Amino acid sequence: MRLRNKPWADDFLSEHNHLVEQEPFEKKGSWKEVFGNNQPIHLEIGTGKGQFIAGNAAAHSDVNFIGIERVKNVIVGALKKVKAKEVDNVRLLNVDAQDLRDLFDTDEVDQIYLNFSDPWPKSRHEKRRLTYQTFLEQYKDVLKPNGQIVMKTDNQGLFEYSLASFSKFGMTIEEVSLDLHSVEDPDNVMTEYEEKFSNKGQPIYRCKVRF
Amino acid sequence: MRLRNKPWADDFLSEHNHLVEQEPFEKKGSWKEVFGNNQPIHLEIGTGKGQFIAGNAAAHSDVNFIGIERVKNVIVGALKKVKAKEVDNVRLLNVDAQDLRDLFDTDEVDQIYLNFSDPWPKSRHEKRRLTYQTFLEQYKDVLKPNGQIVMKTDNQGLFEYSLASFSKFGMTIEEVSLDLHSVEDPDNVMTEYEEKFSNKGQPIYRCKVRF
Repeated sequence: MRLRNKPWADDFLSEHNHLVEQEPFEKKGSWKEVFGNNQPIHLEIGTGKGQFIAGNAAAHSDVNFIGIERVKNVIVGALKKVKAKEVDNVRLLNVDAQDLRDLFDTDEVDQIYLNFSDPWPKSRHEKRRLTYQTFLEQYKDVLKPNGQIVMKTDNQGLFEYSLASFSKFGMTIEEVSLDLHSVEDPDNVMTEYEEKFSNKGQPIYRCKVRF
Repeated sequence: MRLRNKPWADDFLSEHNHLVEQEPFEKKGSWKEVFGNNQPIHLEIGTGKGQFIAGNAAAHSDVNFIGIERVKNVIVGALKKVKAKEVDNVRLLNVDAQDLRDLFDTDEVDQIYLNFSDPWPKSRHEKRRLTYQTFLEQYKDVLKPNGQIVMKTDNQGLFEYSLASFSKFGMTIEEVSLDLHSVEDPDNVMTEYEEKFSNKGQPIYRCKVRF
C-alpha cells in the first residue's frame, strides 16, 4: 500500500516526545528510566497503526509498551490512537531497527509481539522474515530468560515457516492456535489487520514461544 | 461408528499369516528376521482400513511397514487392501498396544506415522491422545536416533495440542503444513479419512518431527 506523504508528520511526532522517543538508540539499557518505573517492558515489532499497542496499554497499565514502526506515515496513526487512550505507558520508536541489540540491553525486554509481519513468501527472501534465525538470535539476547514471544498472523506460509524456525532454533512452542477467533479470548487485543481479515472469515494464527 | 460383527474375521486373519503377524509380542527385537531383510521399518499406529499402508508399501518396496490396529473388524479391511497390492513388505498387527516397548526393541523402528488419531477433545482425556508425553516416551525408546514421526490429522484441536506437546517434550518440529492439499505432493499417500475430509474442502494438517 502506497501512503500519501504527510508533511506534518515530523512536527506531529516531535511535538509528542512524551510518547515518541526521539533518540531511541541513546536509551539502550535505560528504558526503565525513560518510563520512570520498574514495570515489565513489552515490545511490539511493527506497530503499524497502533490499535494493538494502544489497546494493550490501556488494558495493562502495569506494563510498559514500546512499539517500533519504521514507516513515519504509519506511526503517526499509532500516535493518534495512543494519544486518544490517554495512556503514558507507551513509547513509539520511528526507527528501522536492523539489530534490536542497538536499542536494548541484554535481558531488557520481558515480552515481544510479532503481529502480522511481512511474510516475504519467496524463498530467496527468507532472511528478511522476522522469524528467521538471525532475528531469533536478537530476540534471545534482548529478552529476559523465560521471556515470551507472542506471534499472530493471517499468513499460512509464514506461520508454518515460523513454527519450524522457532523449533529448530531450540525454542519451546508453548501454545498454538490455528483459529484464534473460534474461541472467546477476552485478553486478545486485535490489530487493524486482524480485525479486517478475521471479519472476512479468515483464520488468525497465534503461537506463544520461549527460548 | 459401530461396525457389524464379522464372524469370518478370525479365520481370514489367521489364513494370511504371511501378512498378519499372529504372535507379535514374541517378535520384539526380531522384526528384521520376520521380514527376512535389513530394510528400514516404518510403523503406522492406527492403521484403520489400510489405504495408507497398502499404498505406501506398494510405492516403497525398499521399506518394511508394520501397521497396528486394535479393531479386528477394521483391520480385515486393511488386510484386503494389502493383499490386493500383492506386496510382501507389510505386517499387520491386530493388537491393543498399550506400550510399544512390548512390541519393539530400543531403536528398532525407523519412522512412525500417526494418521488421523482419535482427538480425545476433552481435557480429562488428554492422557489418551497419542501425542501425550507418555506416548512420546515410548516413541523415543523404539525409534532410532534421528527417526522421524509424521503426523496427519484433520482435527484442529489435536494438531494444536500435538505441536505444543512435541515441543515441550524437547522434540524438533522440522516441517508444518496447515493445508497439505493446497500444494502438490506426489509422495503423499492419502488415508481413507484424509480423502474423505479433503474432498469436503477441509484442510489436512501434517507435521514432521524428531527427537
